[in-house]
Amino acid sequence: MNRRSFVAAGAAAAPVLAAPAIAQTLNPEVRWRMQSSFGRNLDILFFGAEQISKRVAELTDNRFQIRAFPAGEIAPALQVLDAVQNGTIECGQTPLYWYIGKDPALTFFTSIPFGGNFRQQGAWMKRGGGNELCSEMLREFNCVGFLLGDTGTQMGGWFRNEIRSLSDLNGLKFRIAGMGGQVFQRLGASPALIAGADVYPALERGTIDAAEWVGPHDDEKLGFNRVARFYYAPGFWEPCARGHMVINQRAWDPLPDAYKTAIQVACAEVELEMVARYDAANPVALRRLVGGGAQLRAWPREVMQAAWRVGHELMEENASKNARFKRIWDSYRPFRDDQFQWFRLADSAYDAFAFSAAAR
Amino acid sequence: MNRRSFVAAGAAAAPVLAAPAIAQTLNPEVRWRMQSSFGRNLDILFFGAEQISKRVAELTDNRFQIRAFPAGEIAPALQVLDAVQNGTIECGQTPLYWYIGKDPALTFFTSIPFGGNFRQQGAWMKRGGGNELCSEMLREFNCVGFLLGDTGTQMGGWFRNEIRSLSDLNGLKFRIAGMGGQVFQRLGASPALIAGADVYPALERGTIDAAEWVGPHDDEKLGFNRVARFYYAPGFWEPCARGHMVINQRAWDPLPDAYKTAIQVACAEVELEMVARYDAANPVALRRLVGGGAQLRAWPREVMQAAWRVGHELMEENASKNARFKRIWDSYRPFRDDQFQWFRLADSAYDAFAFSAAAR
Repeated sequence: MNRRSFVAAGAAAAPVLAAPAIAQTLNPEVRWRMQSSFGRNLDILFFGAEQISKRVAELTDNRFQIRAFPAGEIAPALQVLDAVQNGTIECGQTPLYWYIGKDPALTFFTSIPFGGNFRQQGAWMKRGGGNELCSEMLREFNCVGFLLGDTGTQMGGWFRNEIRSLSDLNGLKFRIAGMGGQVFQRLGASPALIAGADVYPALERGTIDAAEWVGPHDDEKLGFNRVARFYYAPGFWEPCARGHMVINQRAWDPLPDAYKTAIQVACAEVELEMVARYDAANPVALRRLVGGGAQLRAWPREVMQAAWRVGHELMEENASKNARFKRIWDSYRPFRDDQFQWFRLADSAYDAFAFSAAAR
Repeated sequence: MNRRSFVAAGAAAAPVLAAPAIAQTLNPEVRWRMQSSFGRNLDILFFGAEQISKRVAELTDNRFQIRAFPAGEIAPALQVLDAVQNGTIECGQTPLYWYIGKDPALTFFTSIPFGGNFRQQGAWMKRGGGNELCSEMLREFNCVGFLLGDTGTQMGGWFRNEIRSLSDLNGLKFRIAGMGGQVFQRLGASPALIAGADVYPALERGTIDAAEWVGPHDDEKLGFNRVARFYYAPGFWEPCARGHMVINQRAWDPLPDAYKTAIQVACAEVELEMVARYDAANPVALRRLVGGGAQLRAWPREVMQAAWRVGHELMEENASKNARFKRIWDSYRPFRDDQFQWFRLADSAYDAFAFSAAAR
C-alpha cells in the first residue's frame, strides 16, 4: 500500500509512522479511504460506512478522516476484501461470506444456514471465540476486522413462480449469497452470487428465476417486486448477516491507541444501529409491497426440513475437508445449540405468545 | 452540583467551563463519578459502568476519567437518578423503570409488560421517537441520558410453590420490578420492588414468597435457587430491559463535542455487548441451576392471557390519567404492533423452526 495515502501531508507525518508513541501525543492527521460493498441506494447498509466516517472524525476532532465510497467507485462490490488486502484502500465495508471462494470458513463470521440469529451470532462472536477465530483468518489476508452492522433474519427472496414443493426448486436459477447457494444447489437449484446493483437486470431479463437480497426495505429499493410476485420467508440461510469493517494491517498498526478505539466503538454503534434501522423500516416497506401485489409465502415444510438436513451435511463435509473449518464448526455448533435451547425458554416463548396475542 | 467535582484542578479548569470552544481545543482534564444501581457481584450489569469508564478514558488519552462505583457507595441503588439530578454525582447507571413512582411514563424507556423485545425496543428508541421522548422527560430531572445495556427477555422468577392456576397468585408476596408489579397486583399478588442485594434475605426469611431479578446468570449469583425451587418463564413484563446512563445536565453541557461523542459511542457499545454477555452466560448458568434441582416451568396459559389483558388495561388507564403517558403510548403501541407483525414473518418464523429442529 501507498504510505502517502495513510498519513496526510504535514510536518508530523514522518515521525508518526516511525514512532507510534509520539503519534499518540501529537494526534496525527490521518486520511483513509473506505469503500463499501454497497451502493448509496442501499441506504441502511451504506449508512454503516458513512457513520464510521462521521464518528471517527467527531471522536478525533477531525484529525482522523475516513472517506466513505459506495460500491464500484474504487473496487468492485465483490472484491472489497481484495482491495483492502492489497492496499488499494485502507479499509472497506463488506460481508465476509462473499469470499467463501477463498476459504469456506469465512462464512461463520457473517452467518451460516441455520446458524444463530442476530443476538446469538453476536454472543458467539464476542463471547464464544468467534472474533478471535475471525482475526486469525483475516491476518492471512493482511487485515484486521470488526463487526459492522446486521440486517436481522433476512427474507427468502422473490420468485416468479410459486414454490409448492421441493421439486419446484429443480433447475431454478436463484441469486443467493453465501453457503445458502450450496444448500439450494443440493436441493436441485442453480445458484448464483450477483452484487446488489446487478440483480434486478438479471431477474428482469430472465437470466435468473428468483433472487434474494435482504428484506422488504432493501428489496423494494432494488425493485424485485416489479418482476417477481412471490415473496418467501424466512431466509433460513441468513438468520442474521453481520457485516465487517476490514482494515489493512499496515494501515492499522501505526494508529494511535485512541484512533484504534475510535474505530472499534464506532463499529459497535453501527452493529446495533443498523439492525434498528432495518427493524424500523421493514414493516413499513412490507406494507407497501403487499399493497402493491406482493404475495407472501412461507416455505413448504418439506423445503425447510430438507434444507436443514443438507445444510448440516454441507457443514460436516466442509469440516471433513478443511481443518480450520472443522475447528470453527466445533466451536460454533455446540454454542449455537446451547443458544437455541436457552432462547426457547424465555425470548422465543415470549415472542411466540406476544406476537400471536397482538394479532388476535 | 459542585463544579469542582466536574473539572479537575489545573490551569485550564476555569476557562473550560466559561468557553466550551476553547475547551475543545485544550482537551480539558475532566473527572466524573458514576454510580451504578448494581453491585460488583452482578458482573454483567456492572460491566456497563466499568466499560464506559474504560472506553471514555481510551478515547480521550485519559483526559476524561469517569470512575465507576457500585450500588450504595455514594447513593442507594434505587436512588441513582435522584443523586444525578441533584448533582451528588455527575452520572449514573440505572434502569428508568425503577422511577415510575415519579412518573409512570418512565417505564417506556426500559420495557413495558408485553412490549417490544430487545431489537424492537431498540428500533422504537432509535428510530420510532423513543429517545426523543425520553430526553424530553429526563430534561425535567435536569438530566440527559443514553441507552446502556440490556438483559434480553428476562425469566419470570423463582417461586417457593408451583403456580398451577391464576388463583395460586392470590396474596403472593412477589419481588418484581417496573409495571410488572402492577400487573401482578391486578392478578391478586402483592408486589414489592427491592434492590438486588436485598432480595435474597427477603426470600430466605420468608418476607416474600417469590422473586424475579433477571435470568439464570444473575439469579444464580443472587442465590435464589437455594431458597425457591420453581423457575418460571418467560418474564412477560420484561421482554427486554434497557438500562440508561443518566448525566447531570450541568455536567454535560460544557463538555467538548468529542467527549460527548465518546460517551455516546461507549454507551452504544455496551448496549449490545451486555446482551451478548448475558446470552453467552445464561445457558451455562441454566444448566448448573437445573443440575442443582431448579424446576423449570412455563406460566399457565391462563396466567399469560389474564396478564395480557390487565397489562393492556393498565396502559390504557395510565394513558387516560396522564397526557404524556398517552402521547408516548400512542407512539409505542402502533410501532410495537407493526414490529410484532413483521417479526412473525422472518425472525420469529426462523427461530421457531430452527430452535425446535435442533432439539429433535
